[in-house]
Amino acid sequence: MKATGVVVEYNPFHNGHLHHLTETKKTSGADLVIACMSGHFLQRGEPAIVSKWARTKMALAAGVDIVIELPYAFATQHAETFAKGSISLLHEIGCESFCFGSEDGGISAFEETVNLIQSNRDTYDASIKNYMNEGLSYPSALSKAFKDLKSSGNLIDLSKPNNILGYHYIEARNTVAPSLQAFTITRESAGYHDEHFASPSIASATSIRKNLFDPDKEENVINRYIPSATYEILEHYRKEFGGYHRWEKYWPLLQYKIMSSSPSQLREIYEIEEGIENRMIESSKSALSFEDFMNRVKSKRYTWTRLQRMALHILTNTTKSEMNERHAAPSYIRLLGMNKTGQEYLNKMKKSLELPLISKLSSADKKDIFLDMKAADIYSLGLSSNEAKKKLLHQEWSQPPVMMR
Amino acid sequence: MKATGVVVEYNPFHNGHLHHLTETKKTSGADLVIACMSGHFLQRGEPAIVSKWARTKMALAAGVDIVIELPYAFATQHAETFAKGSISLLHEIGCESFCFGSEDGGISAFEETVNLIQSNRDTYDASIKNYMNEGLSYPSALSKAFKDLKSSGNLIDLSKPNNILGYHYIEARNTVAPSLQAFTITRESAGYHDEHFASPSIASATSIRKNLFDPDKEENVINRYIPSATYEILEHYRKEFGGYHRWEKYWPLLQYKIMSSSPSQLREIYEIEEGIENRMIESSKSALSFEDFMNRVKSKRYTWTRLQRMALHILTNTTKSEMNERHAAPSYIRLLGMNKTGQEYLNKMKKSLELPLISKLSSADKKDIFLDMKAADIYSLGLSSNEAKKKLLHQEWSQPPVMMR
Repeated sequence: MKATGVVVEYNPFHNGHLHHLTETKKTSGADLVIACMSGHFLQRGEPAIVSKWARTKMALAAGVDIVIELPYAFATQHAETFAKGSISLLHEIGCESFCFGSEDGGISAFEETVNLIQSNRDTYDASIKNYMNEGLSYPSALSKAFKDLKSSGNLIDLSKPNNILGYHYIEARNTVAPSLQAFTITRESAGYHDEHFASPSIASATSIRKNLFDPDKEENVINRYIPSATYEILEHYRKEFGGYHRWEKYWPLLQYKIMSSSPSQLREIYEIEEGIENRMIESSKSALSFEDFMNRVKSKRYTWTRLQRMALHILTNTTKSEMNERHAAPSYIRLLGMNKTGQEYLNKMKKSLELPLISKLSSADKKDIFLDMKAADIYSLGLSSNEAKKKLLHQEWSQPPVMMR
Repeated sequence: MKATGVVVEYNPFHNGHLHHLTETKKTSGADLVIACMSGHFLQRGEPAIVSKWARTKMALAAGVDIVIELPYAFATQHAETFAKGSISLLHEIGCESFCFGSEDGGISAFEETVNLIQSNRDTYDASIKNYMNEGLSYPSALSKAFKDLKSSGNLIDLSKPNNILGYHYIEARNTVAPSLQAFTITRESAGYHDEHFASPSIASATSIRKNLFDPDKEENVINRYIPSATYEILEHYRKEFGGYHRWEKYWPLLQYKIMSSSPSQLREIYEIEEGIENRMIESSKSALSFEDFMNRVKSKRYTWTRLQRMALHILTNTTKSEMNERHAAPSYIRLLGMNKTGQEYLNKMKKSLELPLISKLSSADKKDIFLDMKAADIYSLGLSSNEAKKKLLHQEWSQPPVMMR
C-alpha cells in the first residue's frame, strides 16, 4: 500500500482542505492519505477552536485515512522546526510522498529556491541577521535577504505564507527524508490570512473562525464553506463542552502567570529573550484583554505570530530546557484516528516502525509525551464549566484512536 | 506620648476587637494605640475578605491611632515568625507596651510558660520532632510535648490558638524587644474558630465571614456583632469592587498554576516539601473547587492552615529564596493609616526611627517591598470585573495612608 502525507491544522476542516485532499490523492496516486495534524495548540501560537479529537473526526469524515499528532514541541514552532517535525513523522510512518498547498504551485520552483539559498547559505543568513538587527521582523528580513540574492530563474515568491512553509518542507525533506517525493498544489482563492468571505465555496479558516465567533452572524452562511460533517462536529462540540476555545478564555490565566513571575522566571520560558519579559510584565497589569495585551507588547521587531507563540509557551509554562530536549527530532508517533484502510495499512507496517506508535497515553513513555500532556491539561482550562474541563482532561487520557468505519 | 501596640488582622473588625481595643487603652495607660495589621493575605493562608485599605478604615473608625502593615513575609507564616515580625515592628515604631487577647488572660502564666520551655528547649524541641515523625501535626505535637514537660505551676493551656500566639509574642519579645511591656486580656466569649453566633454582641470573625457569604442569611443579624462603621465599609467595598475576596475566587488560578508546574518547580515554593507537591499536582486535576482540592490533599500530618499557607505561597509564586531573604527581620515600616493623634506622634518620632517609613509605594525600595507588591497584584485578581481589578491594583500604588480626622 502506497501512502502519501499532508501536514495540517484543520482549524476547522473546510472546503479548501477538501480540495487539497482530493488533489493530493489524484496527484500522488497513493492508496491512502496520512495527515500529520497539530494537537490542541497551533503554529500561530493559539488554541485550536476545538480539540484534536474533534478535528480528527473532521479529517476522517472527509476521507483522510490516518491522523497522527504533530507534537507540541514542533506544532507551536516557527516554520523551520514545524516542517522538520512534520516531514520526519510522515517519513517515519512510511509515506512515499507528501503534498502541500502553496501560492506558487510548482514543485520545481521550490526545489530551485531551496538550492539557491543552500548554495548561498552564509551570505543569506548574515543578511537576514543584519535586517533583523535593523529592527525588521524575521519574515520581512527573510523576504529582503532573498531579494538580495538577485538570482533569475524559476523561483517562488518568499513573501507568501504558504510558500514559506513549503520552502521549509522541501528543505526539511532534503535533510531528514531525501527519498520522500514532494508535490504541491495551488491553493484555491482564499489567502491564508483572509478574514472575509471572497469565493462562493472556499474561505480561509481565519474567516470561518471569525464567523463562528461573531454573535451577529448570519445563520448557516458558514455551511457554504465547510463540509456538513465539520458543521455537525463543531455544533456537537459546542454543546458538549459549552463553547469553543480561543485566546481570550485563557487570558485570566496568562495575566496571572505573567503578573506572578519574576523577569528571570519568564526568561526560562522558551523564546523569551531580549528583555521582552519586562514589557510583558508591565503590560499584563494594565491590559484588559488578551488582544489589548498583545497590542501593548507588539512592536515592529516582533510579528504578532511570534509574540503569540511566546504567550503560548508562557501559558503552558514550557521552558527552554524542556523544549530543547525535544525539538531535535520526534521520538514517538501518536495515533489520533484512522479508518479501515488506515488500520489495514498500520497492521501491515506496524512492526517496521522505528518510533513507538502511541495509541493510548496511559501506555506511553511519560517523559516523551510530557509537553503534550501538559498542553492538554492547560487546553482544558479554556472551557467554562468544571464538568467540561474534567471531561476534556479525562478524554486525553482515556480516548483510544478515533475509528471511522 | 506613650504608645501601645496590638497585632491584628481585622477580617473584619468586630465588637470583640473593639473590646480588646478599649481594654488595651485602659490597661496600658497609653496615649495612643498602634495596630500592626496583616496586609491582603492572612496568617491562616487566606485572602482577607476586603483589602488592607478598607480594613485600615475600620480600625481608624474604631479608635486605632496608627495602622502599619505586617508584611507578607511575616503575615502569612506560622506563629513563631508571625510573632517575631509583628513584635519587632511594634518595637521599631516606638511602642512601650503591647496587648494581646488570649484564652488564659494572665501575663505571668505566659512568662512562666516561656521560661519553662526555654530552660527545657532541647528536650522540648526533640519531643516535638518525635511526635511529628509519628505523623502528628505541629500543633498537636507541640501540645503533647508541652504536657510531657510535666511541670506544675502557673502555666497556660497550650492547646488554645490564642494562647499559642501569645506564647510566641512573649518569646519574640524576650528576644527582639526585652524592654517592651506585655499585657494580655481575656477574649470575650467567642472562640477563634467558632462558626456560629453564641453571644449577644460578640462573635468570631469566622462566624461573621460565614454570615457575609451566606446567600440565605437573615438580613442585619451581622449588625449586632460589628460596629456600624465596619458594616458601612463592607457594604461600600462590595459595591465598589463587586464582591468580597475568598479562596474560591482564586481557585482557577491556583489550579492552573499547580497543573502547569513540574514537581521540581513546586518544590521551589516556600513550605513545599516532603512530596506534598505530587499530591497537589494529582489533586489539582480532579478537584472541582478549592475546598474539594484541600480535602483531597489533607492528611493527618498537615493542618488545614498549614496546607492553606502552602496553597497561598503557590498562588503568589513565593519561592523559598524570596522568603528566606526577607523573614529574618522587617526592613521597613509601611504606614497604612492614622488619625490626628497618630500623625502628631509620627511627626515627633519620625526622625528617630531606624527603619524607613513607607507612605507611598512609588517612593519605596522595590526590593524590600517586592513580596507585598506581588501579593497586592495577585490579590486584585480575585475580583470579577476587569475594572475592579485595575482599580484595586492602582490603589496599591497610588493610595496615600488613610487619614481619619
